[in-house]
Amino acid sequence: VDLDRAQEVIAKARAEADRIGVPMTVAVVDAGGHLVAFARMDGVAFLTNEIAIAKAYTAAGARTATSNLEQALAAASHIVIGLATASGGRFLVIGGGAPIRDGDEVVGAVGASGGSAEQDQQVADAAAS
Amino acid sequence: VDLDRAQEVIAKARAEADRIGVPMTVAVVDAGGHLVAFARMDGVAFLTNEIAIAKAYTAAGARTATSNLEQALAAASHIVIGLATASGGRFLVIGGGAPIRDGDEVVGAVGASGGSAEQDQQVADAAAS
Amino acid sequence: VDLDRAQEVIAKARAEADRIGVPMTVAVVDAGGHLVAFARMDGVAFLTNEIAIAKAYTAAGARTATSNLEQALAAASHIVIGLATASGGRFLVIGGGAPIRDGDEVVGAVGASGGSAEQDQQVADAAAS
Amino acid sequence: VDLDRAQEVIAKARAEADRIGVPMTVAVVDAGGHLVAFARMDGVAFLTNEIAIAKAYTAAGARTATSNLEQALAAASHIVIGLATASGGRFLVIGGGAPIRDGDEVVGAVGASGGSAEQDQQVADAAAS
Repeated sequence: VDLDRAQEVIAKARAEADRIGVPMTVAVVDAGGHLVAFARMDGVAFLTNEIAIAKAYTAAGARTATSNLEQALAAASHIVIGLATASGGRFLVIGGGAPIRDGDEVVGAVGASGGSAEQDQQVADAAAS
Repeated sequence: VDLDRAQEVIAKARAEADRIGVPMTVAVVDAGGHLVAFARMDGVAFLTNEIAIAKAYTAAGARTATSNLEQALAAASHIVIGLATASGGRFLVIGGGAPIRDGDEVVGAVGASGGSAEQDQQVADAAAS
Repeated sequence: VDLDRAQEVIAKARAEADRIGVPMTVAVVDAGGHLVAFARMDGVAFLTNEIAIAKAYTAAGARTATSNLEQALAAASHIVIGLATASGGRFLVIGGGAPIRDGDEVVGAVGASGGSAEQDQQVADAAAS
Repeated sequence: VDLDRAQEVIAKARAEADRIGVPMTVAVVDAGGHLVAFARMDGVAFLTNEIAIAKAYTAAGARTATSNLEQALAAASHIVIGLATASGGRFLVIGGGAPIRDGDEVVGAVGASGGSAEQDQQVADAAAS
């Protein structure tokens, strides 16, 4: 993703967050998991920063929505602990991360944090679409 | 800084970076040193990410331009090692970080990375003004 | 394992991954758990990197397949947390790691990541045999 | 870089290392700094692993040879300490890392370790060419 596309994703995320009335922190990373654009909406707690960035990193690195990983690994804390530690804390399996695609290719990902896992995923999906 | 102000700071940084012809990564943090907005301009290497964020963190935490710290600490590597380690790598004394003020109060900071330390500081100063 | 043997293990892993139609990342470590050879097949997500390396490290360090550890520790998250943290994230109990033996002696290990834990173990076993 | 290209780079590095009689560890990363292929030649100490990987990461992230960074930062230990810590140890300014280009675009990087910084850079340059 270039910066224009990344900022478009953030604008979409903010619009969806506004629509459902839940302010959020939104992070957009490139295909390598590196931050391209970021916005924390007013009043959102700063602990959401690392969460949004980790969700985006995870969605880019696994090329799937983090809600899928959350379901798949819900009963496997031995795996989650291992992966979280192996990745230096960047692997995070909570809903709210979605890959950004250009056709079939994953060109980046967006992570949202501030609401419930379901709300975060909804905003990320709307932003990535 | 709220998100509107942070994005204004980023817009100013981009304008100054464009003016001098050096694309940059720009990070804006609040008074607590936590990221509020971020933009990596097209073509800028990803190693600038952590640098821009660390410069902003350092300028907010020390309430002064990082170019001042760079001069003050250039010969004091024992201090730099201690602070870099104590802060988990977020303390970085290279020009390119500037506090954002509201009157006398430091309300956040901006960090820029992509050019020389002098160019980065110039962009950060223009953005924070 | 020397580099020739390690690359032979990787070639076998790739052949088995191709056979079952699941591209993978494969890591081979020596008896000390240190990387000797590595290959990420085209299209495999980068989050598999740390997973494959950690599985190989764990199989070399425990001298058994990681699928055995996964079963043994599935209900013991207090142990998994401790070992993951103590090892800096290199201890990972998911199927996909297998020791490489020279007679009875463990001379290294291979880790595979990209499919299910069962598929990963199948590829690692085929590669280590 | 895809895996074929990465293995070609490793083969070239091994050939150059053989030619000068200095066995090395060689790492190839993609544009995002993530490992694609790796080989540690027989008899090379395992501490070269993290060095080769960090050189490749740094050359990909900065889009320049690490020998250039080594010269530029030789008198600036306050900066090197800060960047090493900020990057979690992945920023390493020793000769031996070279970007891999596809025309003008940086598509990855190679890191070599095992000889002097000059020898490592020579091998990396030969491999990346």
